[in-house]
Amino acid sequence: MIKKILIANRGDIAVRIIRTCKEMGIQTVAIYSEADRECVHRYLADESICIGPNNISKSYNNIDNIIYLALKLNCDAIHPGFGFLSENAEFAGRCEENNIILIGPTKEQMILMGDKSRARQTMIDLNVPVVLGSKEVLKSKEEALSLANEIGYPVMIKASNGGGGKGMRIINSPDEVFSSYELASAEALAAFSNSDLYMEKYIENPRHIEVQVFGDKFSNAIHLGGRDCSMQRRNQKVIEESLSDYLSDEEKNNLYNTALSIVKGVGYIGAGTIEFIVDSSKNFYFIEMNTRIQVEHPVTEMITGIDLIKLQISIADNKPIPFRQEEVVFRGHAIECRINAEDASKDFKPSPGEITSLNIPGGFGVRFDTFVYTGYTIPPLYDSMIGKLICWGENREECINRMNRALDEIIISGVETNVEFQKSLINSNAFINDTHYTKFIENNFIKALSIV
Amino acid sequence: MIKKILIANRGDIAVRIIRTCKEMGIQTVAIYSEADRECVHRYLADESICIGPNNISKSYNNIDNIIYLALKLNCDAIHPGFGFLSENAEFAGRCEENNIILIGPTKEQMILMGDKSRARQTMIDLNVPVVLGSKEVLKSKEEALSLANEIGYPVMIKASNGGGGKGMRIINSPDEVFSSYELASAEALAAFSNSDLYMEKYIENPRHIEVQVFGDKFSNAIHLGGRDCSMQRRNQKVIEESLSDYLSDEEKNNLYNTALSIVKGVGYIGAGTIEFIVDSSKNFYFIEMNTRIQVEHPVTEMITGIDLIKLQISIADNKPIPFRQEEVVFRGHAIECRINAEDASKDFKPSPGEITSLNIPGGFGVRFDTFVYTGYTIPPLYDSMIGKLICWGENREECINRMNRALDEIIISGVETNVEFQKSLINSNAFINDTHYTKFIENNFIKALSIV
Repeated sequence: MIKKILIANRGDIAVRIIRTCKEMGIQTVAIYSEADRECVHRYLADESICIGPNNISKSYNNIDNIIYLALKLNCDAIHPGFGFLSENAEFAGRCEENNIILIGPTKEQMILMGDKSRARQTMIDLNVPVVLGSKEVLKSKEEALSLANEIGYPVMIKASNGGGGKGMRIINSPDEVFSSYELASAEALAAFSNSDLYMEKYIENPRHIEVQVFGDKFSNAIHLGGRDCSMQRRNQKVIEESLSDYLSDEEKNNLYNTALSIVKGVGYIGAGTIEFIVDSSKNFYFIEMNTRIQVEHPVTEMITGIDLIKLQISIADNKPIPFRQEEVVFRGHAIECRINAEDASKDFKPSPGEITSLNIPGGFGVRFDTFVYTGYTIPPLYDSMIGKLICWGENREECINRMNRALDEIIISGVETNVEFQKSLINSNAFINDTHYTKFIENNFIKALSIV
Repeated sequence: MIKKILIANRGDIAVRIIRTCKEMGIQTVAIYSEADRECVHRYLADESICIGPNNISKSYNNIDNIIYLALKLNCDAIHPGFGFLSENAEFAGRCEENNIILIGPTKEQMILMGDKSRARQTMIDLNVPVVLGSKEVLKSKEEALSLANEIGYPVMIKASNGGGGKGMRIINSPDEVFSSYELASAEALAAFSNSDLYMEKYIENPRHIEVQVFGDKFSNAIHLGGRDCSMQRRNQKVIEESLSDYLSDEEKNNLYNTALSIVKGVGYIGAGTIEFIVDSSKNFYFIEMNTRIQVEHPVTEMITGIDLIKLQISIADNKPIPFRQEEVVFRGHAIECRINAEDASKDFKPSPGEITSLNIPGGFGVRFDTFVYTGYTIPPLYDSMIGKLICWGENREECINRMNRALDEIIISGVETNVEFQKSLINSNAFINDTHYTKFIENNFIKALSIV
C-alpha cells in the first residue's frame, strides 16, 4: 500500500498532487530547485528537500538525486506530474530497479508511445486512423500522382528540408499534381538547395480533440470523455474544454471506442491521453499518446466528478478502477484557460517577476489551480504558466459566461499576464460559434506571421 | 425582462448575486453603508452607491432610500439576499407599489410564513407534521395528563416565562405527569414569580434537516433535495451538508413530497427553504419556512449543478422553472463550513479588524465564497461570517477528507477565526459517524453551559 509519495515536479501540478495525497492520507515529499525555495508546493508537502541548483538537468531532471532521495526518505512511490521526467523511460527503469512505484505506465509503454514511428505503426496495426503520407521522399511526379490518388485529395506536398511555407503546395485534384510538384520542387531547390519533397494528407483547419483514458493492472480500460484543445498558439494549448456538440454522439462514441481499443491493444496501465486531429468532415486521425497526466485534466474532473490524480495513485497501488464505464456520467461543460505570465503584445514574451497583488476568482463553478501568491517571485527559468482557470457550466453558453465573469475577477499585478488575451479569445466569434481550429490564433491574432 | 438589479445587501451574498448577474448579462447596482466603503461587493458591481451611515436601519434596512435609489437608477428589480430586508413584508409591499420586482415570494407569502402561528396552522391544514404542544398555558395537572396522552411520550413541560432550563421537566410516562407538573410549577414560581407552564412534544437530540424548494408563476413546484444543518451553535448553523444516508431514500422522498405539498399548497413563488426537525425514529416536524435564499445554498448548487440565484432571478422574470423534477440529478456530497472572524476560546466573541494576510484554499471540489481580501478591515457592525468554505466529494468520506485538506490551506491573519474550531468539529467522532445533533456543540464544546 502506498503510504508516502515523492512528487518529482514543481508549480501547479505539484500542488495538485499534494492536495489529493492529503485527501488520501498519503504522506508527501516535495522537491525544489534553489530557484524554487519560495514555491508553494514545498510548504504544502509534509517534507520538502532542495534537489539541486536552478539548472533543470541538475534538479527536476536529476534522476540520481531523485532516486536517492526517494529511497532515503522511504517513499513507496514517485509521481512525476507532467513535463520533466514524466515520459522518461530511463527514469521509469531506474524506479523499477529500485522498487519504487512510478505513478504512470510501464517503461515499455513509455518507450513505445515515445517513439513516434513505432506508435504510428502500432496504430495502423490496431486499425486506428493515422494521417496518411509518403514514408520516404517522393521519387517522381508519377509516384506523387499515384500516392495522391491512394491517400485522397486534398494532399499537401512539402519540401523535406523546408520551413516557412516554401516548397509547400496544397493539391486538390489529380490534374494539379504534376504542375504543383514541379513548382514546389523548384521552389525547394532555390530555397534549400534540395528539391526533395514528401506528401501527406492535407487537413484544413483541423481541430485537436483528445480522449482521456485509464487502464489498470486487471485489464480494465475506461475513457473519461474527450477534450477539445483546438485553441493553440504554435502548437501549445491555450484553451481546453470538454467536448461540445461539434461532434455528434455517434462520432464521439466512435472516437472513445477507438481510444479504448488502443488502451486494450497495448494493455495500457495508468492515465493516458490519446490525441487526434479532426477534419471538417469529422474524420479523426491519431497524432500521439501522452503517457502521463495532462495540464488540462481538470476539465475532465469538472464534468465527471472523478479525481484523476486519485485514480492514478489508486491504479499504481494495484487497485482496479473502482467504477464501470457505464457509471461514468458527464455533467455540463468545462473550459480551462491557461493563465501565463507573458506579454501578449510582445509576441508572448515571458514576464517573470514579483506578484505584488493577487485576486483569485471564485464562486460557483470556478476553480483556479495555482501555486503563486502575493509576494511570490516568478523565476525566469520555468514555464510561464502560473495558473489554470477552470469554469464549469450547465452548458457551453453558461460556461463561457462564467469564464468571462471569472476572468474579470482576476487581478495579478507586478507581471504581465495573458488574461486580456484570454478574454479576447473567449469572446471571439470563432470560439463562441465553435468554429475555431488549431491555427486560429496564428491566423487572427499574431501579426507579421510567416506562413505556418 | 430584468436588465438591472439593485442588490440590497452586503458581504458574501452581495458578491454571490453580482456574480450570477454578470453571467446573465444583467447590470448591477451595489449599495453600501459608510462602514462598507472598502467592501468588495461595491467594486464588483457596475454601479455602487453609499446608502447611508453605519447604522443598519439607516442603511441596509432603509426602505425609503433603497426604493428611491432603485427608481432613480432605473433598476427593474431588487435582490434582497438573506437577512436585512429579505423577509420584510413592508419592503415587499413598497417594491410592489413602485413597480419594482422583488426577487422573492409575494408579500402575502412572506406575511404568512413570517407569522409562526399562522404558518403552523397552515401546515396542520396541509397535513404536514408539526411539533405538537399546548396552544395555551396549561390549566391543571389533569389537563397536562390528558394532553400528554394525546401528544405521546416523551413530552416536555416548560415555564412560560422561563429560560435556562428552570421550570423545565421531561416526562416519559403518564405516572410521571403529576409529580413533574408540581415540581416544575413550583420551580417556575420561585424563579420567575409565575407558575404558568406549557407543554410540547419532547424531541431528544434532534437533527435539523431542511428542503430547498422553488415555485414559479406557472404553478410548477420542485425541490432540489435537502440539507442537514444539525451542527449548530445556539441555534446558529455552523456546518451544513447535503443529505447523508442518515435518512433512507424512502424517508427522503417522504420529506421532499411533504415540502412540495407546502409549495403547492400555498402557491409559493421563488426560492424557499422548509425546515424540519427530525427525531431519532426519523419522524420529521415542520419548524418554519424561510422565504428567501439561504446562507447554505451553495451546498445544493454543488450537488445539483444548478445556480440557485440564476433560478431565483429567472422565476422573478416570469419564466417557468426550466427543468422537470425528474431531471434534477444529485451527484456526490457537499459540506459547507462557515468561516467566522471570532474567537472560539472566548465564547465565540467576534474578532473584527484588518486581515493582514489571506490564503484562499483551492483545487478540485473546493469553493470559497468570500468578500474579504488582504488589507480589508472587517467592521465590528455586521455578522462575523467572512466566508463559506464549501467542499464537494464523490461521497461523504471523500468530502470530509477534502474539507480537512481545504481547512488546512486557509490562512487568515490579523483576526481570530473559527478555522481550528471547524477542524475539531469536522474531525469529531460524532460528525464523522453522522450522529451529531443540534445541541452537540453545546453539550461537547461549550464549557460552563447552563441547561438549555
